[in-house]
Order: sequence, then structure tokens, then C-alpha cells
Amino acid sequence: MAAKRVLVVAGIGNGSGTGASTARLFAKNGYSVALIARGGDFVNKLANEINTSGGHAAPFVIPSYAHADVTAAWTAITSAFPKPEYTIRAALFNTAYGVWKPFLEVTPAEVQESLETNVAAAFAFARGAILAFKENEVEEANGKRGALIFTGATASARGNTTTSAFAAGKFGTRALSQSLAKEFGKENIHVAHAIIDGAILTDRQRDRNSPEWQNNADVRLSPDSIAASYLYLVNQDRSAWTWELDLRPAHEKW
Amino acid sequence: MAAKRVLVVAGIGNGSGTGASTARLFAKNGYSVALIARGGDFVNKLANEINTSGGHAAPFVIPSYAHADVTAAWTAITSAFPKPEYTIRAALFNTAYGVWKPFLEVTPAEVQESLETNVAAAFAFARGAILAFKENEVEEANGKRGALIFTGATASARGNTTTSAFAAGKFGTRALSQSLAKEFGKENIHVAHAIIDGAILTDRQRDRNSPEWQNNADVRLSPDSIAASYLYLVNQDRSAWTWELDLRPAHEKW
Amino acid sequence: MAAKRVLVVAGIGNGSGTGASTARLFAKNGYSVALIARGGDFVNKLANEINTSGGHAAPFVIPSYAHADVTAAWTAITSAFPKPEYTIRAALFNTAYGVWKPFLEVTPAEVQESLETNVAAAFAFARGAILAFKENEVEEANGKRGALIFTGATASARGNTTTSAFAAGKFGTRALSQSLAKEFGKENIHVAHAIIDGAILTDRQRDRNSPEWQNNADVRLSPDSIAASYLYLVNQDRSAWTWELDLRPAHEKW
Amino acid sequence: MAAKRVLVVAGIGNGSGTGASTARLFAKNGYSVALIARGGDFVNKLANEINTSGGHAAPFVIPSYAHADVTAAWTAITSAFPKPEYTIRAALFNTAYGVWKPFLEVTPAEVQESLETNVAAAFAFARGAILAFKENEVEEANGKRGALIFTGATASARGNTTTSAFAAGKFGTRALSQSLAKEFGKENIHVAHAIIDGAILTDRQRDRNSPEWQNNADVRLSPDSIAASYLYLVNQDRSAWTWELDLRPAHEKW
Repeated sequence: MAAKRVLVVAGIGNGSGTGASTARLFAKNGYSVALIARGGDFVNKLANEINTSGGHAAPFVIPSYAHADVTAAWTAITSAFPKPEYTIRAALFNTAYGVWKPFLEVTPAEVQESLETNVAAAFAFARGAILAFKENEVEEANGKRGALIFTGATASARGNTTTSAFAAGKFGTRALSQSLAKEFGKENIHVAHAIIDGAILTDRQRDRNSPEWQNNADVRLSPDSIAASYLYLVNQDRSAWTWELDLRPAHEKW
Repeated sequence: MAAKRVLVVAGIGNGSGTGASTARLFAKNGYSVALIARGGDFVNKLANEINTSGGHAAPFVIPSYAHADVTAAWTAITSAFPKPEYTIRAALFNTAYGVWKPFLEVTPAEVQESLETNVAAAFAFARGAILAFKENEVEEANGKRGALIFTGATASARGNTTTSAFAAGKFGTRALSQSLAKEFGKENIHVAHAIIDGAILTDRQRDRNSPEWQNNADVRLSPDSIAASYLYLVNQDRSAWTWELDLRPAHEKW
Repeated sequence: MAAKRVLVVAGIGNGSGTGASTARLFAKNGYSVALIARGGDFVNKLANEINTSGGHAAPFVIPSYAHADVTAAWTAITSAFPKPEYTIRAALFNTAYGVWKPFLEVTPAEVQESLETNVAAAFAFARGAILAFKENEVEEANGKRGALIFTGATASARGNTTTSAFAAGKFGTRALSQSLAKEFGKENIHVAHAIIDGAILTDRQRDRNSPEWQNNADVRLSPDSIAASYLYLVNQDRSAWTWELDLRPAHEKW
Repeated sequence: MAAKRVLVVAGIGNGSGTGASTARLFAKNGYSVALIARGGDFVNKLANEINTSGGHAAPFVIPSYAHADVTAAWTAITSAFPKPEYTIRAALFNTAYGVWKPFLEVTPAEVQESLETNVAAAFAFARGAILAFKENEVEEANGKRGALIFTGATASARGNTTTSAFAAGKFGTRALSQSLAKEFGKENIHVAHAIIDGAILTDRQRDRNSPEWQNNADVRLSPDSIAASYLYLVNQDRSAWTWELDLRPAHEKW
């Protein structure tokens, strides 16, 4: 019997955004889903929701995105989803820390938090994913050992007046993803980076914006649509795969 | 009854590359396919192949990629696939002219040919596509009037020692695609650009390369895989669509 | 006696912009200046102005920027400034054709004009410059045979809603400049590209804008300041030279 | 009497690289130079060298590039060079931490060091510079309050197989510099970023490379030539200044 594919996601938010949508979509497509999150409430609720609707999910709550905590989560995941029953084939680093402020108001702690959450945590997460993928055989259907996706933002490629701390972190994630894509492509490990350009329809954005905005698919990103792109990226075969794509709503000005 | 979707492709080569693979894939997915090409032989053969395997294709042979000829092709296509029976929903500009030479050996005629085929023809083709899409209602499934894709290359974003004429043309196509993406996004017309980074497994490349190369999916791009990405782009919905992605084989050095 | 350095400039406009400022500044710095232009009036006036203020300039009027005409200008220039008395050390391609229009209003002739003036003419001009530089010894002071500069614009690196034809041309010039920089660097020929981001204080812009704008050095580019950067680029030595820089006024939003 | 201009440099290395060359060149051009460094030996030696050759330099030794230490250095500098006698007009962030290793060999401590030295320290240094510049009047000659330059590298814009930790840091510095350039341009504070593409002729590189390499100005960057570009950037006037330029030797492959 074929091993069951596993997706590992870090960054679930309150369960209304990209990480949660991706978990749900992959679960519907036959993946077991390992969910890494800092707070327990939302991730437990999400795992429960997936499990009660016929999917298979398990939460892995960590106290912080420090290297040791992320590594501990990967150890727990590889032991909860052991070979040969399971095979970890996909990983999504969806954690981000953003702060929008004039430069002189940015505190050293905020800089630190952006670097730790956006970059150092990404290194720790990527390490777990790469080590797990290296244990895999190349999959027949797509010629890959695994796929690692990073969620980026406009600030991943452009610094702007109020994004110094956020962009410094997101540029760093992007650098990491490009380095990994080049280093591990030759081992048939696929690393991709998505530049999400625009506001995503999460609960937080719902609260901030008008009902018109919420209902207008032309102006905000649907997390389900982002998830669909991530599934596509994971399914791309080795002969033509993507390092980077941008995703934005139809009417976004850019 | 729902109108039948039509894909228009310019640039078929000898029927072994990206344009032809895209035509075949879209035909299998229910599209009628209009094929614009300069020479008649290959395009007729391809149309025939698609028609005899249960698809629907029609060739539109033009003497050159000059504005008037491309425009004439679009007129013929819109008349061969009239509303309300048909609806032109996708278009692929896949024509390219490449020349790899030291700068001092590039002739004025080669510069001209690169600019005409890669840029001027792209303007004419895009005009036909945009005008056709503007006649469409927004499609319920994806919120679009239509999708226009340009096939790019490494030379679309990097000039190199032997690519002055080729890159000058391909940079131009990319500029056009970005301008169009920004201008027509707000009319729900999706414009995308794919940077194909590596050698594609066409008949010409088969002749140039070893059987090992041909059989190694890690090192060359399969036109069918590129076509799969194009179908994905066309299906992306308006809330999260892509202007640009790169496509390369797993072991490509970049 | 040392050979006298020559700068060749294509694109003088009405004598109030970047090309003219560069000619004046280099003349003041001891260069003889060869001025290529389409219309005779302004270029004759500029040459006269430089000659009567102690400099040395000669106009080379051409009927068009077609390859043969540009090549003829270079032949005339190399014969008017013969070795060993003269040595052509710097060249500025400053010609541009811009059109700002919604895509559907752009005519095929405008596309053609953009490609011819921005790209094909740049190939012809670059050919003249490279051939001239290859005749030079490496200069002791900076280790170069010569320097070729291209004036670019925001539209050289970003397509926008009304810039399809302009950007298609300017992207092409940029591609050429990058290819040349890579190919001829190893022959100690320096090729640079300047992205001018903002409105330049030319006579035309004076007419369009308020006196406040004209007098506010924070918001518009001074052609003399651009010329100063070009002189700096030409003087950079071979151990640390620049392919591309951006130039914009302090208060420009970007 | 006019206030004496001050340049602040962070990152002196062993006194043989870009930071030291820039200090020497600015000193020769009439600047007082404040030198921030971690170790005392080299910086004291450099300050001494500048002082004994007719310049004016002062060392500011800090235990680390942590925020508090960098801020303390700025406090000491503004008090050592008080208004109205002095005016801090230029600042160079030249500190970098590089590590070249396969990703799986990179330690969490190395990631941390890269983020702290390349990014967090850059935030602290930039804060000191911006606060100092805001105290200045706009300078008559160039219309600026001050200029802040960041030394970047190839890894500032491209991740590569062995540069994950280095690139993650350098991308971050670049993001910061772009954010600052956009935010403070409108206050006439000029922020620039130089991408140094190639090996610089420092003592360390001398030890690693052949005498042929050392003596071949075509293949390695001279720190004096980089310094000359930095002086040019500082002198650019507000009507046409540069955010980013690349600097590489003539024969560098890129």
C-alpha cells in the first residue's frame, strides 16, 4: 500500500487565512496534515474541523518559533507520521510577522521579532523539511522528493516607507527560498516562493474592511485561491517547476 | 447551452513544442483551438491530429507576423468561432525569434526580425486577444473575461553575452505583458508571462542533444508540463492570479 | 602629445536636455564632442554655443535613426576625429521615443517607431561605439578602452498602464546594454545604463509645468546633474565600475 | 566659519578594505571621520594613520553591533563632534557578516549572527544617522541634509547554493535601505545601496589569491575605487541622486 502523503504547515493564524485554507485543501486531496502553531486554540479547532470532515490532521503547538522549538516540532511530526506508513511530501512556511510604522518608531524588539519570525524560523522550518524530504524516494508522478513553499508578500521584493522592519524580514525569507531552490533542485526537492500582493480575506481583514470589500472577489485575495496555487505548485513535475510566482486580485493596483 | 471556449495560439513551430502541447491539452479540456502559424504544413498536421483524436482545431496560416497579417488572422478567427456559439477565452503568444551570436556579428536584419517577431507581432496579437475578451461576460467559475499568456525565456529578464538581439526582443515582450496586466486587470482580463528557463524537449533539441538528455526529465523542460502550467494559469480565478512565473527543470543551474 | 578625447552623443533634442548638458560638461572637461541629431537647427546651435565658449563640437545631422544613417554618422565621425590626434573614448545613446497611451490607442506605427528609435538605433549606435573603442589602447588613468552609456527611464524596468509601446522599446535598450556590458567588459569596454526616474527639466517640461515646479530642485531632474553622473561613470576605473544606476529627484515618489 | 563635515563609518575590518579606504578618502576631502569598530587595534591604527597624515579621525570601539552598543556609539560621536562646529553629513554602514556553506551545515548561531550584524545593526546604525541628519540644514551645494550609504554584495540581490545565511542578511540590509530611501528622500536625506559584485582586494583576499590576481585591476575590486564611488554618491545633488548602483571589476563574469 502506498505511503500516505503528509503536508506540514507552520502558521495557522486564527484559522481563517492561507495556512488553514491550504491545510483544508490538501486534506481534501488525501494528505495528512501536520499543523505547527504557537497558540493552541485555533490550531486545535482547525485540526478538529479537518478530522471531523473526513480528513486527517494533527496539531503541534510550540511555545515560539525559535530554532529549538521548530526543530522539536519536526521531531514530533516525523515520529507521529513514521515511514513507511507516511511520507512527508509538502511543507508550507506561512508564518509572518508584520509591522507597518515610520522607521523612527520601529523598536529594536520589533526588528528582532521580524528577523526571528520571518527569517530564523524559516531556516529552522526549512531544515526540518529538507531533512524529511531527503528520506523520500523520488515520487513517480512528479519526479520530486518533496516541495517546500514559502508565503511571501509585496514587501518580499520592495521596501516601502512604512515597511522597513517587515521588508527586512520578508526579503530575508525570499533570499533563503532562492538559495534553497538552487541548492536542492538537483536533489529533486522543489522550493517555491509566492509573492502575495494585496490583502487576503482573513477574519482580521474582514473586521477592518467594508462588506463591499469582503464580497468583491476583484479586490481581495481569497485564501482558498492561494491554497489552490500551492497545490498546483506541489503537483508541478520536475521538468518544469516554478521558483516564484506572484498572486494578486484582478483589480489590484501595482 | 454554454458557449464553447476557444483558445487561440500563435506559434506552433513544427508541432513538437510548447504551442502544440498547449493546443493539445486545451483541446482535451474542451476548448476549440485556433492555430495561427506562418508555414502551413505543421499547423495543418497538428489541427488534423487534434480533430481526429476527438478535439476541435482550425489552422489560420499567415504569410508573416506583420500587424496586418496578425490582425487578419484574428478577424478570420472571430468569424470562424462566432458568438454566441463560441467564446474566445484564452490566447497564447508563443512565437519567438532567437539568435545567439556575438554582438558584432548580429546583422540589422536579425535585430529587425527579433523586434518584429517578438514585440511588434506581440502587440498585434495582444490587440486581437484583448478586443475579443472585451466582448465576453465575466465567466462565473473564475471571474475573468479571458486570459492572455506570453511565453518568455531566460533572455526575457537577463541580457547575456550572445543574446543581445534575442534579449532585446524578449525584454520587449515582457514589458508589453506587464503593461497589459496592469491596464486590463481592472477589466478582469488576465495577462501572464512565463519565463521558460532551460531547453525545451522539442524535435530540434532532440536532434542536438544526446538520448540521455532526452530521457532525463530532470534536465530538460517537457512542453506538456509547460502546457499544464498554462492551463493552470488560465483557470486561476480573479482573486489570486499570477502575472509572472518561472518554469525550469529540477537540475537546471541558475 | 596625448590624443584628444572625443565624446559622441546621439540625441540632442532641442538642446535643453540630458544630451546637450552632457555635451557641454564633457566639452568643459576637455573632450571634443560629436553630436548626432536628426534635425539640424538645434544641433548646429549647440555646436556653435560650445565652440564659441572655448569648447570643440561638431554636428552630424542624419535623416533618420535607421541603421545605415547611424552607421554613416559614425563613419563621418571617425573620419572627422582621426587617430592619432583624437581618440573616441565615450559615447552616449540618449535618443528616445516615448508615447503614453492606453494600449488600444497605440498604432502599429507608434510601436514601430518605439522599436526603431529605442532599440534598432541603439544597436547601430552601439556598434559604432564598440568598433571605435576596440581601436583604442587601454587608458592608463582608468584602465578602459571606452565607455558607452545609455539613457534609460522608469519604463526601462517597469511596464505600466499607458506605457506599453514606450516600455517595450526601453526594456529592449536595457537588454542590449546588459548584453554589451557582459560581452565587452572583458575587453575593458565599459557599458552603463542609467534609469532616469522622474521628469527632467527640459524646455518642454518647463512649458508643461508651473514655475514652482521649475524652481524646485527637489522634484525634477536637472540635466546638468544627470550629465555629472555620466561624467562620473566615464571616469570610473576598471576595478569598480557600474552597469546600472538610478537617478531621481529627492522628493520623487517611487 | 562653516561647520566641519563629519563622516561616520561602521565596519573597518583590518583597515585594508572599503571602510578604511572610504575613511581615508573622505579625510583627504576635508571630512572629520568617526570610526565605529568592534576590535580596537585596527581602528586605532587607522585613526592614527589618518591623524598623522593631516586628517582628522576618532575611533569609537564598541563591544558588539547590538542596538544598545551602536546607539551608544552614535551618542558618543554626536557629543565628540558637536554642532555648530561639526555637522554629520555622511554615514557608511560597511559591516557585514558572511558565511558560505551548504545549507544543512549552517548553524542557528550563524543565522543569528548574519541577521544581527547585517540587519539589526543596520537598523541601529541607520537610526543614529537619520537622527543626526535631521538636525542639519539642507546643504547649499547639494540640497541634502546628509547621505547614508550601505555596502551590499552580490548576495544582496541573489540567493545562491552556499549563501543562504549570508544572502538572508544582505537582502535584509537592502530592504532597509530601500525603505529608508523612500521615506527620507522627501526630507532631503539621501540613502544609497551599492552592490559590490566581486572580490575586493583586502589583506584577507591577498592571502587567499595569487600575486597575479592581486596585480590585475581587471579582476578584483580596489577598495579605493569603491570609496571614490561613495564620495561621488555623497556629492550627488538632490535633483538626480541614486538609490542603487552595482560595482564590479571589468572582467567579472556575471
